[in-house]
Amino acid sequence: MSNSYGKAFKISTFGESHGPGIGVVIDGCPSGLEVDLSHIQYELDRRKPGQSKLTSQRKESDEFQVLSGIFEGKSTGTPIALFIPNENQKSQDYNHISDVFRPSHADFTYQEKYGIRDYRGGGRSSARETAARVAAGAIAKQILSAQGIRIEAFVSQVGKIKMQKSYKEIDFSLTETNPVRCPEPEIAEKMAQLIDEIRLERDTIGGIVSCVCFGVPIGLGEPVFDKLHAELGKAMLSINAAKGFQIGPGFDSVGMKGSEHNDAFFTENGVVKTKTNHSGGIQGGISNGQEIYFDVVFKPVATIMQDQQSVDLQGNATTVSGKGRHDPCVLPRAVPIVDAMAALVLVDFWLRNRLVKL
Amino acid sequence: MSNSYGKAFKISTFGESHGPGIGVVIDGCPSGLEVDLSHIQYELDRRKPGQSKLTSQRKESDEFQVLSGIFEGKSTGTPIALFIPNENQKSQDYNHISDVFRPSHADFTYQEKYGIRDYRGGGRSSARETAARVAAGAIAKQILSAQGIRIEAFVSQVGKIKMQKSYKEIDFSLTETNPVRCPEPEIAEKMAQLIDEIRLERDTIGGIVSCVCFGVPIGLGEPVFDKLHAELGKAMLSINAAKGFQIGPGFDSVGMKGSEHNDAFFTENGVVKTKTNHSGGIQGGISNGQEIYFDVVFKPVATIMQDQQSVDLQGNATTVSGKGRHDPCVLPRAVPIVDAMAALVLVDFWLRNRLVKL
Amino acid sequence: MSNSYGKAFKISTFGESHGPGIGVVIDGCPSGLEVDLSHIQYELDRRKPGQSKLTSQRKESDEFQVLSGIFEGKSTGTPIALFIPNENQKSQDYNHISDVFRPSHADFTYQEKYGIRDYRGGGRSSARETAARVAAGAIAKQILSAQGIRIEAFVSQVGKIKMQKSYKEIDFSLTETNPVRCPEPEIAEKMAQLIDEIRLERDTIGGIVSCVCFGVPIGLGEPVFDKLHAELGKAMLSINAAKGFQIGPGFDSVGMKGSEHNDAFFTENGVVKTKTNHSGGIQGGISNGQEIYFDVVFKPVATIMQDQQSVDLQGNATTVSGKGRHDPCVLPRAVPIVDAMAALVLVDFWLRNRLVKL
Amino acid sequence: MSNSYGKAFKISTFGESHGPGIGVVIDGCPSGLEVDLSHIQYELDRRKPGQSKLTSQRKESDEFQVLSGIFEGKSTGTPIALFIPNENQKSQDYNHISDVFRPSHADFTYQEKYGIRDYRGGGRSSARETAARVAAGAIAKQILSAQGIRIEAFVSQVGKIKMQKSYKEIDFSLTETNPVRCPEPEIAEKMAQLIDEIRLERDTIGGIVSCVCFGVPIGLGEPVFDKLHAELGKAMLSINAAKGFQIGPGFDSVGMKGSEHNDAFFTENGVVKTKTNHSGGIQGGISNGQEIYFDVVFKPVATIMQDQQSVDLQGNATTVSGKGRHDPCVLPRAVPIVDAMAALVLVDFWLRNRLVKL
Repeated sequence: MSNSYGKAFKISTFGESHGPGIGVVIDGCPSGLEVDLSHIQYELDRRKPGQSKLTSQRKESDEFQVLSGIFEGKSTGTPIALFIPNENQKSQDYNHISDVFRPSHADFTYQEKYGIRDYRGGGRSSARETAARVAAGAIAKQILSAQGIRIEAFVSQVGKIKMQKSYKEIDFSLTETNPVRCPEPEIAEKMAQLIDEIRLERDTIGGIVSCVCFGVPIGLGEPVFDKLHAELGKAMLSINAAKGFQIGPGFDSVGMKGSEHNDAFFTENGVVKTKTNHSGGIQGGISNGQEIYFDVVFKPVATIMQDQQSVDLQGNATTVSGKGRHDPCVLPRAVPIVDAMAALVLVDFWLRNRLVKL
Repeated sequence: MSNSYGKAFKISTFGESHGPGIGVVIDGCPSGLEVDLSHIQYELDRRKPGQSKLTSQRKESDEFQVLSGIFEGKSTGTPIALFIPNENQKSQDYNHISDVFRPSHADFTYQEKYGIRDYRGGGRSSARETAARVAAGAIAKQILSAQGIRIEAFVSQVGKIKMQKSYKEIDFSLTETNPVRCPEPEIAEKMAQLIDEIRLERDTIGGIVSCVCFGVPIGLGEPVFDKLHAELGKAMLSINAAKGFQIGPGFDSVGMKGSEHNDAFFTENGVVKTKTNHSGGIQGGISNGQEIYFDVVFKPVATIMQDQQSVDLQGNATTVSGKGRHDPCVLPRAVPIVDAMAALVLVDFWLRNRLVKL
Repeated sequence: MSNSYGKAFKISTFGESHGPGIGVVIDGCPSGLEVDLSHIQYELDRRKPGQSKLTSQRKESDEFQVLSGIFEGKSTGTPIALFIPNENQKSQDYNHISDVFRPSHADFTYQEKYGIRDYRGGGRSSARETAARVAAGAIAKQILSAQGIRIEAFVSQVGKIKMQKSYKEIDFSLTETNPVRCPEPEIAEKMAQLIDEIRLERDTIGGIVSCVCFGVPIGLGEPVFDKLHAELGKAMLSINAAKGFQIGPGFDSVGMKGSEHNDAFFTENGVVKTKTNHSGGIQGGISNGQEIYFDVVFKPVATIMQDQQSVDLQGNATTVSGKGRHDPCVLPRAVPIVDAMAALVLVDFWLRNRLVKL
Repeated sequence: MSNSYGKAFKISTFGESHGPGIGVVIDGCPSGLEVDLSHIQYELDRRKPGQSKLTSQRKESDEFQVLSGIFEGKSTGTPIALFIPNENQKSQDYNHISDVFRPSHADFTYQEKYGIRDYRGGGRSSARETAARVAAGAIAKQILSAQGIRIEAFVSQVGKIKMQKSYKEIDFSLTETNPVRCPEPEIAEKMAQLIDEIRLERDTIGGIVSCVCFGVPIGLGEPVFDKLHAELGKAMLSINAAKGFQIGPGFDSVGMKGSEHNDAFFTENGVVKTKTNHSGGIQGGISNGQEIYFDVVFKPVATIMQDQQSVDLQGNATTVSGKGRHDPCVLPRAVPIVDAMAALVLVDFWLRNRLVKL
């Protein structure tokens, strides 16, 4: 009962890892958008496996179909349904877990919650579901882009290797120049080496995806429960393997005093701005016109190519072996997902903001 | 349009800091609960100002009225409305900000979003709104308590002073023994000293509230968007001044490998458990029966007793002076709010979980 | 869990007949409305009992309080909470039904559904709840009025006495000139006589409230489930004692052929209109700019001043006697409720229509 | 933004008449249902065109695909997506209306609301959308059937030819024995003749579908806005061409006195029942255990095989000619749609009723 996200621009996703495919229905996309289908495919390609040796070697084209909602190239205001058929599934890779729970996966909790689970590839709990989000997010980005809103997600940390630049110093044109999607090429190189080492250890590693949103107008976010950063937090934490979220300096603000943290207002060319941006572009849950920046931490992938202790459906002790084709580090493929979820949050609030004044 | 929270146990709050009062309507409280009104007052008292020299010296009794939904001591299944009249407002303390924006407050964003704002005490953006959450959360806690679910929030860090114990080592009976609400009395003492120093500096300081939930049954949380930790994150980030959220080790998991982070399953007395709990009690967005633990970071309070640069409604440069009776550190009073929001999330999922199996 | 109505302009009502009072929270009223409080009271006065000998002789002033959301006379965009304290309750009038079910009332179903009920005056099932709708509806009407939208509800039938004029022939300035609220005074007179006869028989009678909405712009209503007439139907059927709804000719269209029923388009002064209006102003669930007209049938009031067979909580046969001060016919007091619900539906769709185009 | 229906068992439909197909996503189907796919096809076959000379001669197999949510024959608790590819579209039949508005169709209102429309076959406004509802409704019926709930919709009136039997006298095994779906064969015969005459006149005719729900447990329906009959009303009025709804005697109750209309309670074998059932099985918006019965009126189909006056996109007067393969009377095909919508309402409330008691 929670396969939908958004109140004005509402997406509903469906599909399992090893079923016919993954899909999304967008209810609330305004009419009149010239939908760029190749851009949707571009975003899906950024997420798909097999892009480099750093990611899973599964080969899936992730080509999508438009089932409804677009007529003569434009959105009509009716639901836009997109479908991405599954390919290259090796369901037999999963027979060994049909009655065994992989540690730190969703196998156990799904089985207990529902009394049944599609164990093939993790079924609904597979990160493959995020393909639907990326497809919908691409449409959201097209709407936002026309408003001058630009979203830049990137890998800022893998293991203990992290970028040092502040968000203001980054050249975002470099993000897509390396398979890690870190806009500091020399750091990206070290991250790539670390991921490769981890892969050879048959282990996995986590990291941080950071994101900066430029050009967000003043006024997005709805007090009191749907504060903009609260929804961004929820959206990010709903991504597989995400374990934490912070806006602005976040946990680092703990050592600051109010006199250091507060962002003084000033006026420049008739526009009210802040001298610093410790608020992360959001005050009282509402965007203030400054850049919005936040971080999402991803734990190491649960599937490792090692034997692990576990139990079976009957609670008997057993060993689970890692099989299949998996990512030693999800961070590079998480970047377009963070992008997409940020776009879905922003487009939803951008629409909702049409309702607040008489 | 977002003054409601919850899908099954839905609360809607209303009221401003300097209006007649603050209220909440609970739609979805099951019938048959023997409501303990004194416990609601107890929780409100934990949140109210004037409890110690560490907090605001405003005196408000925060006594609540039951407007509906309880008959002969029991919930009837109809909406429960609770109202907390405002008292002791000194609205004239706010005349100086009627046309000026306090830095890092919501003054500017509300004004821009709505074209109008009730500037007295921050109006709707005041943390006074959280009294309504605490009242509703108390009812949620009464339901959860009968299910053996216990929520323990506490202050784990103020400025750079932090607790060292893991959540398993804490004696939670000590939380309420000191005004900081830190269950390590010697650390609490240092925190209190720091807060007092900061107060004398006419400045403010932030910190971290941590929370542990015991006895949560397996199965709470709804894939894919309403993952349990995603909703906890949203709920916590919707609290005034919260800037970050992490579940389990959160940002600290970034340095761990999958082989270190994964929680091996084993069976004890017929119950499936995990040897470690790096998942923070949640796997695939669903509770797995282990303790749920998370952290929420609060920035330093924006209102400081110092002059700050700002602009007025016309964009002219001006100076804002700190006036009124404010908290140098919100952490002690944030504890019951975190408690309440956790309870509201858990009771909502506990009810929703009744829907999933045939 | 369904004490709320509306998606953009959302109202949540609370309160019971014999508790402290009845209230409503409006979440989503746009900011900047100059709220006319006297108009809210005017609408409440139209609904309150004791207006004439045709209605219940209970005396309640139904004076309301503003608890939040209005500052210096204007809506601020935050929740508007209104509260109407109960007065003049004679709860002892209901002691005799504390363990007995009144026929065709909600006593039995509430008891079975919730296992408990506030029997005093029907508790939550009392039509007193509609006072909250009328108060909220008054605000909705103020918004609509500024858009040139006018709603005219009236009593078109009581028992078998009915108006003959089509909606185009009615002089709506006459509706409030008689206690029945029928805009044909000579018919109103007959209706009043019938109601008085029924009252003396210690019985009750039903009838039809009709409603015409003028000035509704083209485009309100949302395919496919929230068609404008579907929501109007739900809103009207949610009023106590309503048992049927029809739009346009409704059930009378059953004898017409398509060639008779279809509304031919033509253009007048650049505006597309229809020659007839059998569609009732709605085509495909969306307003087409013509007058919207519909009918709501109300059954006879269930409380009659006679002895009736029933059962008690244990299922034993018993007799229920009519006591208290009740309406022999609800139609006159239902008019402002139909008005209010129509306004709430229209204002909700008027706001939602802001979202559909890019 | 309203292509979804239901709160606990939520369906979202998508698709246009002449696009790739029509689909539905069910979010909230409990896990563990053994889904009978052939029964879904059976219901779709009842709705599809080309069943008899009384209905449209279009040939569409309406075979559906399962895209997600069913594993090894059972529902898993994840979204169930069903897709019905379109076939046999003759889009060129609609070229003549690409810039012309068919009278009493949704062409004009969609164009004005969205600024664009898929004119082929009515696009999203086509009754073809209801195929998705029928598919989802079939699953709802399977859940309800296991609870002993049975829904019987049937044609009770076509033009002025109507059934005389009360709902208690009907032999429902006869509904499917004739192409009209009227359970009184001799009346059905007259209806069929009338429809055939109307067809030869190149005209259309409306009628009434009635529905009886047996075995509905006490307690379904949610005060105050989601009363059971209010939701049934909305669901029925959301069906293409529906113009009115009544529960129980509905508009006929207008001539009854309270003493006639009230349903006296009595106890039979320990079960509380009512002697009459003028309440239509619902009191105070909640089912009381008696049969629920209601009527839905359908206007004559707007597409007639005659020339009609209209205007084009520029507002110029023009003539629209009837083309294509259309139904002279939708009633026979509306029966499974009414069935389906009733099932969707009931299953939603059946699930929601799990939430009301502690």
